Amino acid sequence: METISIGLLGLGTVGSGVVKIIENHQDKIMHQVGCPVKVRKILVKNINKERDVELTDILLTGDANDILDDPEIDVVIEVMGGIEETKNILLKALNNKKQVVTANKDLMAVHGAELLQAASHNNCDLFYEASVAGGIPILRGLVDGLASDRIVKLMGIVNGTTNFILTKMSQQQRAYEDVLAEAQELGFAESDPTSDVEGLDAARKMTILATLGFSMNIGLEDVKVQGISNVTDEDILYGKQLGYTMKLIGIAQRNEEKVEVSVQPTFIVDSHPLASVHNEYNAVYVYGEAVGQTMFYGPGAGSLPTATAVVSDLMNVLKNMRLGVNGKGAIAPQFKKKLKEPDEMFSKYFLRLQVKDEVGVFAEITSIFSQHGVSFEKILQLPVKEKGLAEIVLVTHHASLLNYENILLELSDLASVRTVKSSYRVEGGIK
Amino acid sequence: METISIGLLGLGTVGSGVVKIIENHQDKIMHQVGCPVKVRKILVKNINKERDVELTDILLTGDANDILDDPEIDVVIEVMGGIEETKNILLKALNNKKQVVTANKDLMAVHGAELLQAASHNNCDLFYEASVAGGIPILRGLVDGLASDRIVKLMGIVNGTTNFILTKMSQQQRAYEDVLAEAQELGFAESDPTSDVEGLDAARKMTILATLGFSMNIGLEDVKVQGISNVTDEDILYGKQLGYTMKLIGIAQRNEEKVEVSVQPTFIVDSHPLASVHNEYNAVYVYGEAVGQTMFYGPGAGSLPTATAVVSDLMNVLKNMRLGVNGKGAIAPQFKKKLKEPDEMFSKYFLRLQVKDEVGVFAEITSIFSQHGVSFEKILQLPVKEKGLAEIVLVTHHASLLNYENILLELSDLASVRTVKSSYRVEGGIK
Repeated sequence: METISIGLLGLGTVGSGVVKIIENHQDKIMHQVGCPVKVRKILVKNINKERDVELTDILLTGDANDILDDPEIDVVIEVMGGIEETKNILLKALNNKKQVVTANKDLMAVHGAELLQAASHNNCDLFYEASVAGGIPILRGLVDGLASDRIVKLMGIVNGTTNFILTKMSQQQRAYEDVLAEAQELGFAESDPTSDVEGLDAARKMTILATLGFSMNIGLEDVKVQGISNVTDEDILYGKQLGYTMKLIGIAQRNEEKVEVSVQPTFIVDSHPLASVHNEYNAVYVYGEAVGQTMFYGPGAGSLPTATAVVSDLMNVLKNMRLGVNGKGAIAPQFKKKLKEPDEMFSKYFLRLQVKDEVGVFAEITSIFSQHGVSFEKILQLPVKEKGLAEIVLVTHHASLLNYENILLELSDLASVRTVKSSYRVEGGIK
Repeated sequence: METISIGLLGLGTVGSGVVKIIENHQDKIMHQVGCPVKVRKILVKNINKERDVELTDILLTGDANDILDDPEIDVVIEVMGGIEETKNILLKALNNKKQVVTANKDLMAVHGAELLQAASHNNCDLFYEASVAGGIPILRGLVDGLASDRIVKLMGIVNGTTNFILTKMSQQQRAYEDVLAEAQELGFAESDPTSDVEGLDAARKMTILATLGFSMNIGLEDVKVQGISNVTDEDILYGKQLGYTMKLIGIAQRNEEKVEVSVQPTFIVDSHPLASVHNEYNAVYVYGEAVGQTMFYGPGAGSLPTATAVVSDLMNVLKNMRLGVNGKGAIAPQFKKKLKEPDEMFSKYFLRLQVKDEVGVFAEITSIFSQHGVSFEKILQLPVKEKGLAEIVLVTHHASLLNYENILLELSDLASVRTVKSSYRVEGGIK
């Protein structure tokens, strides 16, 4: 029985987790794949750094080619991050006929199509379950579990940092900046949190999910992105009164053959399963034509959860090696990309306005909506501290983005509208 | 490009769904498996019955051998139900080298091991994703998605009928009999609901989940089963006051190498993701050593959801056919079955007592608990209508089943304890 040799690129949080899981679960791996598995070499930045993981008989190297050019290495696992340089390293690995597992969402979101083509060309597997929603086996769920269905809509809470922040803001009625500072202290947010809070991280994951779910090459440039840094605890409170929970939601939706993909702070109807996904947890809600509503829930990040997904991918690579079918299960996208236009994107919207508290104002505002054929699901009027002003919250029925944006423009031109305080997408049903 | 020929056993709700999905999603199937797929023959009880599904070019037959002996049939899909006779039919199908997909939980719970062995012996696939939790791809999630992890605990809401009943009882404060009658009218419950409400259906599914999750042949006889027919709306109300939601939960748990599997009405802590699974929906919560908490949510039954799982299995069979690896991915159980003894099963318990409202009674009761080393997490005392009586609700910390049962015995012997009104397991954390 031959031992399978692994080359690991990166020994950070996830890399250490991979080494530990391969070590701790050697029995289960042996039983399932029929041979021992050993990490032989690890690419690291600093060879002499102290590590809290057992590395006996493992060669640490600063040169990727020590791994890529080693004919003994069967599988390359990439958990080092980075985009351009990492792409070249993985292309070389594939061209050298090495199986590849990666946890790198940034890379897959940008160069996924090219890498998957190289893998297919070389009869190699390229698996990347860990790149979306850490420990949740969502990619395999979409590709295998729901293989026979037509996915119509995907909604994801796919960024743990923002979900932690929004959960605390909502449960403790605290301001964004305040909770962000706490999240940074606790290590749930980076010192530069931009990529998380501005939605870029979530957008990358939605790119990967939409590409798989719709069998269409969706690029990062196709995703409309808005972050949570402007969400206020006041907004969240208004939403609560209407039965909504604020979440950063990635949405990928198709009607007929056209798709839209976006990430934005969204009010989710409280009874929807996504509304109960709290703190740093992730969840991906999938609406399939036949299956209806399903949801996959779990930890979106963390050393061991992410490493679990990586090693599960590794085991699928090894099963394929045993059967001699690596790279043969890959399926190229079925459809050419077609994106919806703003008049084809429909959603409900929550709109909060500060208006003059005068006779006729309400009629003036609502008539703009009706001129655009948009009606209301909920209306809430509240007094404000400043005299002569009133605050109105409107929730529309489904409206096209084009119509809604035109309405916003016309509203901001009205003398009676003092400020458009906030505007959010509302989700919870299926349209 | 050759057409793959399917023989379908059964044309009820799920069978019709299978015919529809194969027809409607032919393009996606073609793209993924590389050849057309056609249902050729269907085994039915009544050939002349009117059907609401298009059956052009499909032969209906009353004789299973028309399918089993037909060398043109590549795959047999079983959605007719039944146990002993169906087992013999599927054994013959496998021995005739046909790939098999089944949605039959009763069959797999009772004869799964034998059938899987026959499949392996004949180099055939035997897939049964639809047998547990309909449209939720949980079996694949356990086997592939969490392949590298050690599953410690599975908790499932795996019976839609009982979840519908308990949801309505809880949300509308209605009695069991009342809601059951409604469920029967709506078609959510059978006219003889025994198998659902007494937990047998859930037990069968837990048998399948535990066998896969723990890689150990668990039999139906190993599952401790209690149904919901004695749950009262009063109990549910008391639970609510303590922050619990009542669910029929299947639990499979292991410590070291020993396991326990049970199904019982259980109070789930409100913040736990299972507490938000309402109506006829199903969910399986998985606790893995490395991944932590994950949950798979979706429709547990229904024509199209279940058929989605069946056809997804079919597509995995077809991918394997293309690669020539059918039956080679199966993994026999790794461990010999070892069941926990009652002194090794730990849980929290909710206990509701009606006691004499006298000095010293409370001390008398609680001292029995402390003699057995069991302490309390929550205590609630409430007045009752009948004079001279009080009602006490106790929630214990973790106690062994042995200790807890001894406590119950001693309590019922006390003169001051009028009635043990109810007793439930409490779940929500991980022990």
